[in-house]
Amino acid sequence: MTHLSHLECPRCGEELDASRLQNLCGCGSPLLVRYDLDAMSKDVSPKDVEAGREDMWRFHKFLPVPEEEIVGLGEGMTPIFSLPDAGPEIGAHNLSLKDEGFNPTGTFKARGAACGVSMARYLNATTVAMPTAGNAGGAWSAYAARAGIGCVVAMPQDAPLLTQQECSLFGARTYLVKGLISDAGAIIGRAVERYGWFDASTLKEPYRIEGKKTMGLELAMQLGWKVPDAVLYPAGGGVGLIGIWKAFEELEAMGWIGPERPKMIAVQSEGCAPLVRAFEDGRRDSDFWEGAKTLAGGIRVPKALGDFLVLDALYESGGRAVAVSDEQILEALRLVARTEGLFICPEGAACVAAVSSMIADGYLDPSDEIMIINTGTGLKYSEVVDVDLPVLEVDSDIILDDGGVQT
Amino acid sequence: MTHLSHLECPRCGEELDASRLQNLCGCGSPLLVRYDLDAMSKDVSPKDVEAGREDMWRFHKFLPVPEEEIVGLGEGMTPIFSLPDAGPEIGAHNLSLKDEGFNPTGTFKARGAACGVSMARYLNATTVAMPTAGNAGGAWSAYAARAGIGCVVAMPQDAPLLTQQECSLFGARTYLVKGLISDAGAIIGRAVERYGWFDASTLKEPYRIEGKKTMGLELAMQLGWKVPDAVLYPAGGGVGLIGIWKAFEELEAMGWIGPERPKMIAVQSEGCAPLVRAFEDGRRDSDFWEGAKTLAGGIRVPKALGDFLVLDALYESGGRAVAVSDEQILEALRLVARTEGLFICPEGAACVAAVSSMIADGYLDPSDEIMIINTGTGLKYSEVVDVDLPVLEVDSDIILDDGGVQT
Repeated sequence: MTHLSHLECPRCGEELDASRLQNLCGCGSPLLVRYDLDAMSKDVSPKDVEAGREDMWRFHKFLPVPEEEIVGLGEGMTPIFSLPDAGPEIGAHNLSLKDEGFNPTGTFKARGAACGVSMARYLNATTVAMPTAGNAGGAWSAYAARAGIGCVVAMPQDAPLLTQQECSLFGARTYLVKGLISDAGAIIGRAVERYGWFDASTLKEPYRIEGKKTMGLELAMQLGWKVPDAVLYPAGGGVGLIGIWKAFEELEAMGWIGPERPKMIAVQSEGCAPLVRAFEDGRRDSDFWEGAKTLAGGIRVPKALGDFLVLDALYESGGRAVAVSDEQILEALRLVARTEGLFICPEGAACVAAVSSMIADGYLDPSDEIMIINTGTGLKYSEVVDVDLPVLEVDSDIILDDGGVQT
Repeated sequence: MTHLSHLECPRCGEELDASRLQNLCGCGSPLLVRYDLDAMSKDVSPKDVEAGREDMWRFHKFLPVPEEEIVGLGEGMTPIFSLPDAGPEIGAHNLSLKDEGFNPTGTFKARGAACGVSMARYLNATTVAMPTAGNAGGAWSAYAARAGIGCVVAMPQDAPLLTQQECSLFGARTYLVKGLISDAGAIIGRAVERYGWFDASTLKEPYRIEGKKTMGLELAMQLGWKVPDAVLYPAGGGVGLIGIWKAFEELEAMGWIGPERPKMIAVQSEGCAPLVRAFEDGRRDSDFWEGAKTLAGGIRVPKALGDFLVLDALYESGGRAVAVSDEQILEALRLVARTEGLFICPEGAACVAAVSSMIADGYLDPSDEIMIINTGTGLKYSEVVDVDLPVLEVDSDIILDDGGVQT
């Protein structure tokens, strides 16, 4: 038994049946999942959750999937690391990072895929299909393989080779497209019509938000049922930020946290900053960003279907949308690796890079508890790191001018 | 307070002081760490451990590191996955896999590095140095960065680019060598002499075994303080197998498990199988394997310093050493990905490949509880996977002969 009630359109208020597969609302908006929170609060306590499974499904009562229908690969319950060296170097003395690189397939996409695939199979989808920049495809392919359902993905030809390999290995029908992710999306859209597959494109199905919501649930639990002063999230489609925000709402409705909210901060790249532009104009929706370009592929999203939900959370929390340069991203990535032993992804590094300017202008305080969502492992982004190492002959020696002291 | 007692030579019986940095015994053997197990058994219970930290340090009472000296990055407490589809396909109906790919830096090397770096810093080493095939270097570099001590690694020029990048990013002094890991070892040996660094080469320091021992401790705990019927481990240096075996000894001495032991099975590649050759000859030590060649880099070790400890465990447990071909490795890797949604490493895949022949000849029973140690994530081995994907023009369509049904 779950506490799933119905699907609700956050734009027009329409309520839809949650007992069958649904995509968008008739008005074109993504749908949000609603629960019977009264029944839920009688059924589960913080202690139950704390003593639960070692993965995100310790929150299964907050989720739409019946327990026996869970398709899991060990997703969630990712560690939070303090950054005691990197933080002070950029002026933040209480800086931490929730490391989503510990998920199966190496990114936070696993959370959305676990929930999305579980629900798709439960509601009798036999094949899920989607366009992807890479990591979502890898995750959905893995869970579809585990679930024993089909998966079809189309990705730009320049998608990271590692994600092409993942999708192919996991047995997805995998296509490269000579174009952008939007071109891949159009191809998938036509194929979905032709073959009757379930369209699992980002925000075109309602359940990946629920999976990503567990980031916010875990965050509150790991901090002792409190929220930090600020959450920095690298926003491409923005689903994770929407999910974290929804988690806090539900936890408050349950009485597990109070009305306090962190400043929700969406971080983008200067080469693709549609949410930043919309935020600076005080608008609730964003314009398509022409010529999107950044080395952080996960935030190279010219127009997010859920932009208004992201922007709502920023405005309501007193948050911000900020952009950083690719150079700042690489510098932050190197800083965190060298000082903390963590190889974070460029998207997570964008958040680290965004901190110093917000402290410099007084928006954040050096003592604020600042939480960065590092959405994946750097291991999936080897192409962004240049190395030029000394090469030794077998009979040669390491000779150092500095006497070999610690550097 | 720890229960660390002393270091012991498993070959000549010599006891050494554990309060200072030590490398090999005077007789040339690696050293094992010994504890006051009586005091330990009064100080910790299975319940304490079960309620402990979310990482391998829930077993800190079994380890040499004082709690306040732990250098951690979230290592250990990796999930165990059943293989309900891949298992039966190869004749094993109770086949599981402990997935070490969930560790920081993506491999089980993190466990040894966490314990080794913690102890090195605690005992006042300022720089650790080692040769590496790649993954150990990545792990030790990460923990050294976290610990704030220096790290020097030398690796063959053909080591995976991803591990070169890791070491460099983590701030290690990183050298490529035009030769084998043994050549890199010689260069490190001379540099250690010259600069006074601590030699942290595999088994030349006693503490990485202790870190890897936690795989065995966790395994027993995760199975309800029982051991499986067989453990398959991909043996390069064999440190993990030595550690798992030591874990079972200590758990029995503590009274947490009985005298039962799994068959300990060392898996190697046909292109580098020194332990298999020694085992088949009934010997306690192995010969250097000339011309070692396999795509599974982690088991391309021509001669392991701890070969006699591995072979002892095989003989005492009624185990075996078996070799598989590179073709079998790739086939097993693809099988597990396609059917289970797990992208395992070639070394873990070697273990999967080894199962069917041992069931076919009656050594293992189809109903045996068989546990494979998958030592790392496949994400670090992208070079072993070939993909050849269809490429679509932007205005083209996905056209399928089979009607698009699940494949």
